[in-house]
Amino acid sequence: MKLHNFNSGPSVLPQTVMEQASQAILDFNGTGLSILEIGHRTTHFQAVLDEAIASVKQLMDLGDDHDVLFLHGGATTQFMQVPMNLLDDQATAAYHINGIWGKKAATEAALFGKVTIVADSADRQNTYIQKEFSIPEAASYLHITSNNTVEGTQWHQFPETSVPLVADMSSDIFCRPANYNRFAFIYAGAQKNMGAAGVNMVVVRKDVLGKVNRRIPTIMDYQKHIAAGSLMNTPPVFAVYVSMLTLRWIIQEGGLPEMEKRNQAKANLLYQTIDSLPLFTPTVAKEDRSLMNAVFFLNDPALEPVFLDECKKEGMIGVKGYRTVGGIRVSMYNALDQSSVEAICSLMQDFARRKG
Amino acid sequence: MKLHNFNSGPSVLPQTVMEQASQAILDFNGTGLSILEIGHRTTHFQAVLDEAIASVKQLMDLGDDHDVLFLHGGATTQFMQVPMNLLDDQATAAYHINGIWGKKAATEAALFGKVTIVADSADRQNTYIQKEFSIPEAASYLHITSNNTVEGTQWHQFPETSVPLVADMSSDIFCRPANYNRFAFIYAGAQKNMGAAGVNMVVVRKDVLGKVNRRIPTIMDYQKHIAAGSLMNTPPVFAVYVSMLTLRWIIQEGGLPEMEKRNQAKANLLYQTIDSLPLFTPTVAKEDRSLMNAVFFLNDPALEPVFLDECKKEGMIGVKGYRTVGGIRVSMYNALDQSSVEAICSLMQDFARRKG
Repeated sequence: MKLHNFNSGPSVLPQTVMEQASQAILDFNGTGLSILEIGHRTTHFQAVLDEAIASVKQLMDLGDDHDVLFLHGGATTQFMQVPMNLLDDQATAAYHINGIWGKKAATEAALFGKVTIVADSADRQNTYIQKEFSIPEAASYLHITSNNTVEGTQWHQFPETSVPLVADMSSDIFCRPANYNRFAFIYAGAQKNMGAAGVNMVVVRKDVLGKVNRRIPTIMDYQKHIAAGSLMNTPPVFAVYVSMLTLRWIIQEGGLPEMEKRNQAKANLLYQTIDSLPLFTPTVAKEDRSLMNAVFFLNDPALEPVFLDECKKEGMIGVKGYRTVGGIRVSMYNALDQSSVEAICSLMQDFARRKG
Repeated sequence: MKLHNFNSGPSVLPQTVMEQASQAILDFNGTGLSILEIGHRTTHFQAVLDEAIASVKQLMDLGDDHDVLFLHGGATTQFMQVPMNLLDDQATAAYHINGIWGKKAATEAALFGKVTIVADSADRQNTYIQKEFSIPEAASYLHITSNNTVEGTQWHQFPETSVPLVADMSSDIFCRPANYNRFAFIYAGAQKNMGAAGVNMVVVRKDVLGKVNRRIPTIMDYQKHIAAGSLMNTPPVFAVYVSMLTLRWIIQEGGLPEMEKRNQAKANLLYQTIDSLPLFTPTVAKEDRSLMNAVFFLNDPALEPVFLDECKKEGMIGVKGYRTVGGIRVSMYNALDQSSVEAICSLMQDFARRKG
């Protein structure tokens, strides 16, 4: 049976990436060595890292002011590493919260300096993104979460700010073109649109660094990582390699414009299906619906386990909503084929006919 | 040509681990999904994590006082995470330094509290391990590096201490049996004896935690990782899986007694060869020679590039000494076959006949 992987992350990756990664574990580029046993200070790995960094710069059209790093850990590490590097003890950071991850990011920032919550969509169960808010003029930065994996909302137009703009893009990185040069800092765990779990990508505009007074542990210091060319210590070699392969795939497929086109086609089909079937209820404000994670409910809660069971029988993986939200969540990352969305939409229509 | 992988890390892994890891990327345990695209909160991954943790406990014969964690990052992360969790601002930690890594660990600790260097073998170019030293009675812990990857020394009898004993075992973890319950804290990057780069293993005796006053960022807090069963955030799934496979291999091969037997046989052969050939000079004190990393020199520095070139032609990888030390370094981790050591010893004998 063909499986449809709607996992929210770790999640579906392109088949060609899997095949190349599998092969590289047996023999990496004809070296006779596995990618798992090559040194990280070899020309072999340097070529992998160089291509990964160059691919990010190309896809995001980044200028020379921005550096790209591949670091250990996931976004949760960045929740503390960002304020450790950017927020002084007595300074203030602005956090715009639309869900669980933004809230966690703000909590970690409060360990390092002052935090002003400029918006919090908890007042409507995080089903929308607040567009009206004001940022303290002296704020060291504004932090946003570009896509809310759990709640199914996404920023479709990034806010204009005079203060440096920082974004957690873990769950929608590389899903669409945008003016990424506007951001002072972008971070993303790899395990959704960029590769396998175990590596973090960071894009940083160098001028925001070096301004805090605290002493930063070496492994947490972005400036030292930049100086070391992302090779301060042994990096997560294989995870960087899988990211490089995934980035290469995105470029070969047509880059971010093509990803956006596909993602919009998939999301349109799914949201239209939800909207057309009274059995299903979308909860997210239409204008804030995520291209990546669609969250919706069955009107009759008793039908939810029945629907989940049918999904399972049809080989549809990962459609149960997050534990704090409930309902259904369909994640449609870059590598998810249109045919998988068609499959679940068919099932929804059929289910509605039978149960509606 | 058969390659002999003497890399210092990332380094050689068992062939069966490579084959299983390669296969799991295409289809993990018959799930139809790749190990790279399964959720970390599935029963599939929980079984991997459970086996990895249970294998560590079995191999080290750990009692219930000790917990095992698999965390993001490498030992360099632990250099700061250990003092962040164990060393209060006004308290003192004792560091026993025998080389580059121990020195780096002490430098990071100084960001968090007071550091007393109880021994430093820099006085003899880190070619030995000081056994005579005294530890401040009030020290929060004594930190040692069990094996010095760069310098080629190893503790063969761990020090008796009244204060908690903390060890960086990155480069000799699981190389031999010992009373590991004596340690309050052990950490090791995976990429030598335990798996692929991108994951850290931590063994912690719970009673040493929770004693510092500072507020610890969530992702750095060992107590929170213990409470979350090593699943606080998305772990480096594939790297944990490779560690699990490697630990399974160690157990199947006969556990730590068998690893020690093999490691001693390999090291004995290599050191006997070095000692028997006047062309080569060992630098490390005999009693402190490492089972894992043998460092030695050619008497005539002009012959060094010639020897390295011959190694290369014979498919011997990773034998150039570390940049700050120079000379030759032969790393002989658990997964390195005796035949590889025999091959380089043959070459050394042949080289000595021709050039001696």
